[in-house]
Amino acid sequence: MRLWSRGELDALEATADRLNSSIGFDRRLFNEDVDGSIAWINALEQAEILSEEDVNQMRQGLEEIREDLFSVRVTFEPGDEDIHTAVERLLTEKIGELAKKIHTGRSRNDQVATDFRLWVMRACDEVLQLLHDYLSAIIEAAKIGLDAPMPGYTHLQVAQPVTWGHWMLSHFWPAVRDRERFQRTRRVASDLPLGSGALAGTSYAIDRELLAQDLGFESVSENSIDAVSDRDFVLEFLFAASVLGVHLSRLAEGLIIFNTAEFGFIRIDDRFVTGSSLMPQKKNPDVLELARGKSGRLIGGLTGMLVTLKGLPSAYDKDLQEDKEPVFDAFDTLAAVLPAITGLLSTITINPEQMEAKITGESLATKLADYLVGKGIAFRDAYREVAGILDRLGQQDRKLKEISMQDMKALHPAFEDDIMDTLDPRNAIAEYTSLGGTSQESLNIQLQNAFKALEASA
Amino acid sequence: MRLWSRGELDALEATADRLNSSIGFDRRLFNEDVDGSIAWINALEQAEILSEEDVNQMRQGLEEIREDLFSVRVTFEPGDEDIHTAVERLLTEKIGELAKKIHTGRSRNDQVATDFRLWVMRACDEVLQLLHDYLSAIIEAAKIGLDAPMPGYTHLQVAQPVTWGHWMLSHFWPAVRDRERFQRTRRVASDLPLGSGALAGTSYAIDRELLAQDLGFESVSENSIDAVSDRDFVLEFLFAASVLGVHLSRLAEGLIIFNTAEFGFIRIDDRFVTGSSLMPQKKNPDVLELARGKSGRLIGGLTGMLVTLKGLPSAYDKDLQEDKEPVFDAFDTLAAVLPAITGLLSTITINPEQMEAKITGESLATKLADYLVGKGIAFRDAYREVAGILDRLGQQDRKLKEISMQDMKALHPAFEDDIMDTLDPRNAIAEYTSLGGTSQESLNIQLQNAFKALEASA
Amino acid sequence: MRLWSRGELDALEATADRLNSSIGFDRRLFNEDVDGSIAWINALEQAEILSEEDVNQMRQGLEEIREDLFSVRVTFEPGDEDIHTAVERLLTEKIGELAKKIHTGRSRNDQVATDFRLWVMRACDEVLQLLHDYLSAIIEAAKIGLDAPMPGYTHLQVAQPVTWGHWMLSHFWPAVRDRERFQRTRRVASDLPLGSGALAGTSYAIDRELLAQDLGFESVSENSIDAVSDRDFVLEFLFAASVLGVHLSRLAEGLIIFNTAEFGFIRIDDRFVTGSSLMPQKKNPDVLELARGKSGRLIGGLTGMLVTLKGLPSAYDKDLQEDKEPVFDAFDTLAAVLPAITGLLSTITINPEQMEAKITGESLATKLADYLVGKGIAFRDAYREVAGILDRLGQQDRKLKEISMQDMKALHPAFEDDIMDTLDPRNAIAEYTSLGGTSQESLNIQLQNAFKALEASA
Amino acid sequence: MRLWSRGELDALEATADRLNSSIGFDRRLFNEDVDGSIAWINALEQAEILSEEDVNQMRQGLEEIREDLFSVRVTFEPGDEDIHTAVERLLTEKIGELAKKIHTGRSRNDQVATDFRLWVMRACDEVLQLLHDYLSAIIEAAKIGLDAPMPGYTHLQVAQPVTWGHWMLSHFWPAVRDRERFQRTRRVASDLPLGSGALAGTSYAIDRELLAQDLGFESVSENSIDAVSDRDFVLEFLFAASVLGVHLSRLAEGLIIFNTAEFGFIRIDDRFVTGSSLMPQKKNPDVLELARGKSGRLIGGLTGMLVTLKGLPSAYDKDLQEDKEPVFDAFDTLAAVLPAITGLLSTITINPEQMEAKITGESLATKLADYLVGKGIAFRDAYREVAGILDRLGQQDRKLKEISMQDMKALHPAFEDDIMDTLDPRNAIAEYTSLGGTSQESLNIQLQNAFKALEASA
Repeated sequence: MRLWSRGELDALEATADRLNSSIGFDRRLFNEDVDGSIAWINALEQAEILSEEDVNQMRQGLEEIREDLFSVRVTFEPGDEDIHTAVERLLTEKIGELAKKIHTGRSRNDQVATDFRLWVMRACDEVLQLLHDYLSAIIEAAKIGLDAPMPGYTHLQVAQPVTWGHWMLSHFWPAVRDRERFQRTRRVASDLPLGSGALAGTSYAIDRELLAQDLGFESVSENSIDAVSDRDFVLEFLFAASVLGVHLSRLAEGLIIFNTAEFGFIRIDDRFVTGSSLMPQKKNPDVLELARGKSGRLIGGLTGMLVTLKGLPSAYDKDLQEDKEPVFDAFDTLAAVLPAITGLLSTITINPEQMEAKITGESLATKLADYLVGKGIAFRDAYREVAGILDRLGQQDRKLKEISMQDMKALHPAFEDDIMDTLDPRNAIAEYTSLGGTSQESLNIQLQNAFKALEASA
Repeated sequence: MRLWSRGELDALEATADRLNSSIGFDRRLFNEDVDGSIAWINALEQAEILSEEDVNQMRQGLEEIREDLFSVRVTFEPGDEDIHTAVERLLTEKIGELAKKIHTGRSRNDQVATDFRLWVMRACDEVLQLLHDYLSAIIEAAKIGLDAPMPGYTHLQVAQPVTWGHWMLSHFWPAVRDRERFQRTRRVASDLPLGSGALAGTSYAIDRELLAQDLGFESVSENSIDAVSDRDFVLEFLFAASVLGVHLSRLAEGLIIFNTAEFGFIRIDDRFVTGSSLMPQKKNPDVLELARGKSGRLIGGLTGMLVTLKGLPSAYDKDLQEDKEPVFDAFDTLAAVLPAITGLLSTITINPEQMEAKITGESLATKLADYLVGKGIAFRDAYREVAGILDRLGQQDRKLKEISMQDMKALHPAFEDDIMDTLDPRNAIAEYTSLGGTSQESLNIQLQNAFKALEASA
Repeated sequence: MRLWSRGELDALEATADRLNSSIGFDRRLFNEDVDGSIAWINALEQAEILSEEDVNQMRQGLEEIREDLFSVRVTFEPGDEDIHTAVERLLTEKIGELAKKIHTGRSRNDQVATDFRLWVMRACDEVLQLLHDYLSAIIEAAKIGLDAPMPGYTHLQVAQPVTWGHWMLSHFWPAVRDRERFQRTRRVASDLPLGSGALAGTSYAIDRELLAQDLGFESVSENSIDAVSDRDFVLEFLFAASVLGVHLSRLAEGLIIFNTAEFGFIRIDDRFVTGSSLMPQKKNPDVLELARGKSGRLIGGLTGMLVTLKGLPSAYDKDLQEDKEPVFDAFDTLAAVLPAITGLLSTITINPEQMEAKITGESLATKLADYLVGKGIAFRDAYREVAGILDRLGQQDRKLKEISMQDMKALHPAFEDDIMDTLDPRNAIAEYTSLGGTSQESLNIQLQNAFKALEASA
Repeated sequence: MRLWSRGELDALEATADRLNSSIGFDRRLFNEDVDGSIAWINALEQAEILSEEDVNQMRQGLEEIREDLFSVRVTFEPGDEDIHTAVERLLTEKIGELAKKIHTGRSRNDQVATDFRLWVMRACDEVLQLLHDYLSAIIEAAKIGLDAPMPGYTHLQVAQPVTWGHWMLSHFWPAVRDRERFQRTRRVASDLPLGSGALAGTSYAIDRELLAQDLGFESVSENSIDAVSDRDFVLEFLFAASVLGVHLSRLAEGLIIFNTAEFGFIRIDDRFVTGSSLMPQKKNPDVLELARGKSGRLIGGLTGMLVTLKGLPSAYDKDLQEDKEPVFDAFDTLAAVLPAITGLLSTITINPEQMEAKITGESLATKLADYLVGKGIAFRDAYREVAGILDRLGQQDRKLKEISMQDMKALHPAFEDDIMDTLDPRNAIAEYTSLGGTSQESLNIQLQNAFKALEASA
C-alpha cells in the first residue's frame, strides 16, 4: 500500500505505477534513509513529539531494517514505490502502530533531498580516496623515467624535447584540480534540507542546527522552497565527474598512441591488455579505450540533468526523481575506471631508447634560434633564418641529426663550434629551467610539490 | 575462459576485467546473437566450411541455448566477458568440439555490430507499435471536444480562440514525424556488417547477400572497415528518441498547466495521478512530469554517444562498447513513458465551460482589426487603431467582454451593429478556415488526414 | 605576413587560411594581449634580455596600439591570423626592428592561455557585479509582499500556503551559489601559464612569480605541458554560466505562469513586455522567455567544449582554438539577460488579493492532519483520515473553504471549535516557524541573512 | 518604431530591447523574407484582398529592398527589432501607405517559420554541393593508392593488412549517409507553415497549396498550432551537422596520426599546414585539428537547441527565437571545414614504402589460424595454437617477419612449405574477397559503387 493510498480509491494504473516507481534504483539510498530517519526521530524527541521510549524502539527497528537491507534479506512489495515508503512499511511490520508517527512533520520532499545529499557526500569521500590512489600512481609512473628524454608534442608533431616524467606529471595536476572539484562538491552537498517539509517548512519545534550536526552536514538550508528544489549539488557532482572523465580521456589517448607499434614508447602490462576473438596476436589497450570512451556517458549524464532541471517551475516537481540515476552511474563509472587506470599506471614500463631515438634534430630549432638570439640577432629574425635553413635542408632531404659541425657552420655565419652542443637534446632539456619546465632542476621542484599536494589529500 | 585466453598467461587484473566486461548489459542481445550465429553457420555451410550435419547439430544447440536464456536458466561464468563469448562457451558445453568451428571467418567486431543492428531494428518495431497506440489516443482525446472553444496561447498569453480538438491534434503531427524518424532509423540499421571480419573482410566464400536476406537486412555494407566502425544507426535511434522526448515534454507541460486549479481545463483520471506522503489532498500529475523530465536522459544519451564517437581513429576501438547502454535506456524509457501517456490521454476529461470562460474578449482583437480591414483600412493602421482602443479601455480597467454595442460603436466610427458578432469567439473560430486552421470545416479535414496517417502505420 | 611565414614558400590555401584564422573573434583579447606583452617585456628586462630603454620604447608602442584598438582605429591585414600576430605586426610598424625581440622565449601557446585567463578573470568580475544587482533586485521584489499569502506549489498543484516574499527569496539563494561558482572560476583561472613556452618551459631566466604578481594572477602553473593544455577554467566558466542559466529558466518559468491571465499573481511593467505583429492586445513576457530559452545556448556551449577537449593527446592541439567563442557567447548572454531580468524584477508588481484567493482550503490538509496528531493520533493514521474526509467531500463536490464549523465537526469526532482556526491560511503560515520556513518570524531571519550575503559581494 | 508600437506608450526598456532584438542575426533571412512576402502578396491578390496594381507596386518595392540589402546599402534603425519588421518599414518608406497592407492575415509567427525553413532548404542545397566535392575528393585520394598495402588497425594496434584505398573509402560511405541526412532534412524543412497566422490559421481565403508551390515547398502543414511551433527541421539540420562533424573528427584523427613522424604514412601539402610562432620547424595539421575540434560546437548547437525546445508549452514562445544562431553557426562551420578538408585530401600524398614496412608479421596471425583451419583444425583450436606460437616467439623476442621457413615448420607440425605464402601480406590482402573486403577484386566493385553513389548526388 502506498503511503498516500486512499484504500479502495487507490487504483494507480499499472503503466503509471511502473513509470512512477523508483525503488528499482533508489534502494541504494537505504543506508542514508535509515540514518536520516534516526536523526529525525531524535529531533522529534527533542521537540517532545516522541518519548524516549518511542525513539528507542523506533531506532532499534530502523537498525534492524538497515541490517536486513545490507544483507539483502528484504523483498520489496508492489506498493513500495520508493525506498522511503519501503522503510516506513518495514518499520510498521517490525514495531507496529508506533511506526505511523515517524513521518510527523516530515515530507518525502525534504527526506529524499537529505538522503541523497548524504549519499553524495559519502560518494565524494570514496572518489577522493580513488583519486588519491590515482595521483600516487601517476607519481610512481613518472619516477620510472623522470629525466628520460622523449619528444614533446604539440599538434601531435614533435615540438621540443621533454622527459617522460615531465609528461607523466602533466597529468598529475589536472587530477589535483579534479580532487578540488570533488572536495567542493562535498561541501555544496552538505547543506541540510531536512526540516523544510513539503516546501513551507515544518510547524513542529525541530532544531535544524542540531539535526545538521547529528547527520554531519556543514550548514542548514536558508529557504525551505529552495531546499526541496535545489539540485545544484547533483550538477556539481556530474560536472566534477565529467571534467575528470575528459582528463582521463586525454591521458588515455596519449598512452594509446605511445603504445602503438609505431611509437613504441610504453608497454602495458599483460594484466591490463585484452585479446581478440579472431586475431591471436592482439594485445589491446581496452582499459584505456574504455576510460576514453566513458567520458561520453559522464558528459551525457551532466547534459541530461541540466535538461531535466531546465524550466522547472515549482518547489518540487516529480522530474527531480530523475536526479539519482545519472549520479549513481557516474559514481559507478569512476569506481570502475579509476582503479583500472591506477593499476595500469602502476605496472607500466617505458622504452627509453625508443623515446630518445624519436627526438628529431628539428625539434631543437627553437634552441638554434635562441643561439642566434644569444649572438645578438632579434628573435623574429633568428626564427626566420632558422626556418630558412630548415627549408633548404628539407629540399635536400637532409635531417639536422645527420649534419656535421662543418656543414652546420656553413649554414649560418654566426654558428660556431659550440653549435653542436645546441643540437644535443639533453642540453636543451637541461636549459628549460623555468618553474614547471622540463629540466631536471625544475622537475625536482615539481616532484616535491606533487608529493606535498598528494599528502594534502591523505 | 576468455575466447582469447592464452592459458597460464591469462591473468587479466580484476579491475581491468570488471571495466572490460559487458555481459552485465549485452546479455540483452542473446536472442539476436543466436539468430546471427544460425545465419552464420548457414553461410559457412553454403561456403562448404561446415557440413549439413554440423550445421544441424550446431543449430539445435543454439536453439536450446536460446530457450535456456529466455527462461533465465543460464548462469554466467567469470570468463564470459560478453554475451558472444558466453554463447560460444555454452555451445561448446552442449555440443563439444564442433562448437569450436563456429567463429570461423567471423570476428566479434562484425558479430556484435550485426547483433546490435538486429536488436535496434526490432526495438524500432516495438516503438512504432507504441507510437501507433499513442497517435490513436491523441485522436480519441481530440474527439472529446473537437470543436470545444478554448483560449489559444502564444507566450502563454491568451492569443486567439481555438478549440480543444485543434490543440490536441497539434500534438498528433509531431508524433507522426517521430514515427518517420523511427521508420528511417530501422532502415539505417538494416545494413548488414556480417562478413566484414575484424576489419579487412573475410577470406571464406561467404555470400553476404544471402546472409542479409536470411537475417532480414535490407542491404549489405559496402566497406568492411566502415562496417565494424559505423554507429550512425545508434545515433539515429538516440536522436529519434530525443526528439520524441522533447515532443512529449511539450505536451506534458501544456497538460500540467491546463491541469492546474487556476486553469482548470482538464481532469486527469485518478488512475493516473499520485499522492503526497505528507499532504492528503494532493493529486499530482507525476506521469506528465516524468514524461517531461525524462527528456533529459534521452538527450543525455544522445550527447554522450556523440562524445564517445568523436575522434575515434580505428576501425574498431573498444570505446564502441559504450554504444549499447544508452540505446537500451532510451528504449526502456520510451517503453515506460509512451503507454502511461497513452493511458492518461485515453482517460482524460475536459471542462468546456471553464475553457470557454477563459477566452478573453481581447483575444478577438485581431478580428477587430480584420473588421476594419474589411472597411477599407490598411491592416497596419487597423492594428494600431485597435491597439489604441484597447489601451484606452485598459486605462479605464474595462474589458471588451463587458462592453455594450453602443459603447463599442462609440469607440470607432467604422464599428457598426455587426461589430458584436466579431466579438463572439465562436464566430472567430468559424472564420479560421485556412487549411490547418481552427474552424470546424478545417478540423474535419485535419481529422480525416489524421486517420489516414494513423492507418498508414497500422 | 604570418609570424611563421617562410617567404615565398608561404602559400597557405585560402580555404585553410579561412578555417585557421581566429582574428574574427580573438580580437576581443587585445587589451589582455597588451597587458600580457607588457608584463613579458618587463620580465625580459629583469632577465637582462632587454634593456630599460628597449622596454620603455616597446611599452609605449604597446600602449599606443591598445589605444588604437580601443578606438577601433586599426585595420587588420590578411596575414593577421590572430590578435597576437596582429599586435606583433602593429608593434613592428610602430617601433621597427626592436619589436622583433618581443617574442623571445615566449610561445603563442603560453601567450594565448595567459591572455584568455586574464580575460576570464575580468569577465568573472563583471558577472559578479551583475549578480550583485540581480540579488539586490530579488530582495527588493521580495519585500513588496514579504508576508503576502499565496499558494505554494509542488507538482504545480496547490500544496501549502506560503508567502510571496518566501517564494521570491527561494530564487535568491540559488543566485548566491551562482556567485560562489563565478568566484571560484576566477580563482581557477588565476593560475599563470606564461613562461611555459610552447610546452617545455623557457630557457631564459624569467621570474614567473613576479610575472604572476605583475598580471594579478594568484598562482603559477606547476607543469609547463599542463599549463598550455589546461582548459579547466573554461569549463568552470561555462558550467557556472549553465547552472545560472538553469536557475534563470526556473525563475522565468514561475513568473511566466504567475503572469498568465489564469493565475494573475503578478504584473510585468510595460517597459518589459513586448507586442505582437498581428494581435493588438498582446503583452508578452519575452524577457522571461528569452531568459528561459537562452539556458539552451549556455548548456550547449558547455557540452560543446567538453566534446572539443575530449581525447586531445598533445600539450597543445589546435582544437583548443575553439575555447573562446563559447565563453564570449556565454558572457554576452549573461550580460544581456541579467540586466533585463534585474530590471523586470525591480518594476514587478503583485496582486495580493488574487494570490490569497487562490489558496485552496485543501492546501491546509496537512494542518488538519497535524491537528489530529495534536489530539494523539499517529501521523499516518491522521493523514489517512484527512484523505478520507477530502475524498468524501470531493464526491459531493464540496470545497473545504465553503464548509461551516458545524459540518466540519461532523466530519471527525476529534474536530472541535478551534478547527476553523486551522483552516485559516494565515494561521498555517504563522506556524511554519522552522528555520527557512514561511512564517513571518522565519522570513525576517532569512531576509537578514540575505542582506548579509548580499553585502558579502559588495 | 516597432510593428506593435503603441506610440507614446512605447517605452521598451533598453535592457529588454537589447535582449529582445534579433536583427543582429536574423538579417541573414532577408532574401527569404522578400521571397516569402512576394508569395504572400500574390496570395492576397488571388484572395482579392489586394489588386493587381497593388501587388505590382509592392513586388517592385520588395525587389528593390532585396537589392539594397544584397548590396548592404541599408542602415537598420533602433526600432527594427527583426528583419521582418525592417522589411515592412523599408517598404513603407519606399511605397508609402500601401505597405501597411502587406501584413494582412499574416503573423510573424508563420512568417518567420516560413522564411527560416526556406533558408534551411537552401542551406541544405549548399551543404549537399560541398559534400559532393568532398565525396569526390575522397575517391581521388583513395585512387592514389587503391591497392597500396598498409596496416589495418583496431584499438590502434596493427590488426590485419588492408590497403590505403580501402581505408580512404571507409570514410566515403559515412559521408554518403551524411548526404542522405541533409537530403531528408531538406524534405522535413519543406512543409509550408505560411497561412497559419499567429496560431489559429487565417480567415482570409488564402490558397496555401498554391503558396507552397510558389515558394517551392513540398507540402502544406496540417495543423496551424503545430506549424508555428514545430522546430523539428532545425533539430534535423543540427543533427545532420553533428553526425557529419563526428565523421570528420574520426577522419581527422586518423590522418593526424598517420601524419606523425612516427607513422609517416602521409604527407600533407604545404598549402594545408601551418607553422609555430616559436618553433621554426613546425608544420602543423591545423586544418585537421580544427575539423576534429569543431565537432564540439556542432554537437553543442544540437544539445542547446534540444534544451531550448524542452518543455515549451504554447504554440509560439519567444524561446523559439533561439533557433537561428545555432543553425547559422553549424552552416558556417561546415562551409569552412568541408572545403578545407576537400582541398587537403585533393593534395595529400602517401608513403607506400613506409606503410608496407609497418605491416607486422603478427598481423597475419589470423591467416595462420585460417591455414590450420584449412588443415582440418577447428577454428578455436587453431586460434589457440597460433596464439601459443606467438607467445613463445614473443618470449624469445622474435618477430614473425624474421623467421625462416625451416623455423616456421618447426613451430607446428601442420605448417608446410606453402606457409611462407601465408606470411606475405599481399597474399593475405588478395584473399579478403568478401563484398566490402580489402582485396583488389572487392575494392574494384566498391569503387564502382562509390562512383555510382557520387553520380547520384550530381
